[in-house]
Amino acid sequence: MPNTISITKINKSKVDNLDFDNIALGRTFTDHMFVCDYHDGQWSNPRITPMEMIPMHPACMALHYGQALFEGMKATIDTNGTPLLFRPDKNAERLNFSARRLGMPEFSETLFVDALKELVSLDQQWIPPQEGSALYLRPFMFADEAFIGMRAANSYKFIVMASPSKPIYTDRIRLYAETSFIRAAYGGTGEAKAAGNYAAQFYPTSEALKKGFQQIIWTDASNHEYLEEAGTMNIFFKIKGTLVTSPTNDRILDGITRKSIISLAKQDGIPVEERPIKVSEIKEAHENGTLEEIFGTGTAVVVLTIHSFSHQNESYRLPKETPIALQLKEKLVGIQYNTGEDPFNWRQAVD
Amino acid sequence: MPNTISITKINKSKVDNLDFDNIALGRTFTDHMFVCDYHDGQWSNPRITPMEMIPMHPACMALHYGQALFEGMKATIDTNGTPLLFRPDKNAERLNFSARRLGMPEFSETLFVDALKELVSLDQQWIPPQEGSALYLRPFMFADEAFIGMRAANSYKFIVMASPSKPIYTDRIRLYAETSFIRAAYGGTGEAKAAGNYAAQFYPTSEALKKGFQQIIWTDASNHEYLEEAGTMNIFFKIKGTLVTSPTNDRILDGITRKSIISLAKQDGIPVEERPIKVSEIKEAHENGTLEEIFGTGTAVVVLTIHSFSHQNESYRLPKETPIALQLKEKLVGIQYNTGEDPFNWRQAVD
Repeated sequence: MPNTISITKINKSKVDNLDFDNIALGRTFTDHMFVCDYHDGQWSNPRITPMEMIPMHPACMALHYGQALFEGMKATIDTNGTPLLFRPDKNAERLNFSARRLGMPEFSETLFVDALKELVSLDQQWIPPQEGSALYLRPFMFADEAFIGMRAANSYKFIVMASPSKPIYTDRIRLYAETSFIRAAYGGTGEAKAAGNYAAQFYPTSEALKKGFQQIIWTDASNHEYLEEAGTMNIFFKIKGTLVTSPTNDRILDGITRKSIISLAKQDGIPVEERPIKVSEIKEAHENGTLEEIFGTGTAVVVLTIHSFSHQNESYRLPKETPIALQLKEKLVGIQYNTGEDPFNWRQAVD
Repeated sequence: MPNTISITKINKSKVDNLDFDNIALGRTFTDHMFVCDYHDGQWSNPRITPMEMIPMHPACMALHYGQALFEGMKATIDTNGTPLLFRPDKNAERLNFSARRLGMPEFSETLFVDALKELVSLDQQWIPPQEGSALYLRPFMFADEAFIGMRAANSYKFIVMASPSKPIYTDRIRLYAETSFIRAAYGGTGEAKAAGNYAAQFYPTSEALKKGFQQIIWTDASNHEYLEEAGTMNIFFKIKGTLVTSPTNDRILDGITRKSIISLAKQDGIPVEERPIKVSEIKEAHENGTLEEIFGTGTAVVVLTIHSFSHQNESYRLPKETPIALQLKEKLVGIQYNTGEDPFNWRQAVD
């Protein structure tokens, strides 16, 4: 495929209508989107177009069989006005991992990054300048063949759209350890950012919200003995000075913030263990006072500290002081907003 | 909601272009579709329109989070030219079961059946007259809100479309018992006809096809000890005169053909057991000659007999004679095509 992206610009930008202090989260989109089509075994026609409706056949296979995946990432802007991306190559890799598990075609990792840079460059006025805010980027791929039948589709669309955003949570959150519903199991699609993984979470999560929690922390599908990941975050526990987090596997998403936090912690000399974590271990550590911090990591939240978690009608409060979570968050945010060192060259400037 | 369905007919039917002996399966659709919209907490505007493209926002939540489900059923036509439906109330019930698990709104079961009858009546010329062929009906619901964020959507579309079809398999098929990938686990969405369940199957199934099998038979997610269901069918084993099939649960779809076959078998005095089935039990029965038949049941296939199944590099051939499968299939087909008795009043004529 030619890696040349054709560009059709909008006549007049809508960014002037945007009040950066009152963004309608999740429903505000920039002027443009990137689109690429897959058929006859190859990707073609990479293009940036005005953000617009897509005509879709009612038999569009993604709507019937869930052959759809996405990525989530952020563009930030530094005080010099340079737009920045954070480790976009890792999202490209993970997109292709998800694609393979769902029987979907891979996408050129070079073109993925080029497309993001082109789109962010064109729509850079939409990047909220406040630290903590960002332009959320949503690359996604779905089967758009009109076909009723049980097989992988022969045609797909890959799209990137962008939405200005700010933090959803401004305070520590309460987690609910779910022990009947699951989001993923061994041999399933939990490690892929598969669309269907998320639909499976909505009902159990809405039940948890009604009880006063903000997110679920999922336990393993077999015996519900292990703490795995939260609704939109990987989870870290600090016990006696050591950070512990679940290993990634076919139930646990390979979070890019997760792996970045592990690298930053190790650089700071903080011991990190990636291993299965029993609920009973965390309860015991809480009882004997060695459970020092719990925090979640994810693209949207970066690092989010936990107020308490509940398991089988018992609630466990965490200490209010979370020095390690804050230290690691500051380092990561420093990289993302170009206010700090970037020892691993994770930051990529957009021309 | 008013249960009055507004109807906009196509100017000129395309049915004259259809060659019933050469139907392009899965990609031929009738003239019309039924559509209904959900927003502000209620369903509105039930309508039949010409089959047409739907404009869709790129942030359509079903494409990102897999909040989508479907049903599958058939309309047949008897020798008097009366279109027939088979237990449509059961599909309506199951649609709402799936909707609840996925945090989606329920749909009026009365309107569901009315919509099907209206659509089938209007497009009845599209029903293939041959026994075994049928007009496949595809009710489906998906989240169409344009929103980026992790929650159930606030707006949905419910659509029914129809596609003339004939049997895909004309011979006994080979099954591959999958022991590493899974389609569903306890606490998951396996009992719902959730879009995401199907995407999870495509890659493992394509691997099985490459090895010369036609479908996977899934084993349980925990230890892969139990045989559960096949790609698009529930599975029955006949051992020493008794039919055995897995109980429905959160991993196994509550098939309407499955439950109909159980009723018909019991009526014929055939003992039926709904219980977990170990792979080892089936292998043992095969070895000592008591495994008499294996067959799958599903809307598309009705009853499909199995040539052999493979488990961990061992292949197990089934006897060629399958008297019970054929007897039960004949009874069910007799009901569906009005060529036989309908002791349970499952058949519904469309005016």
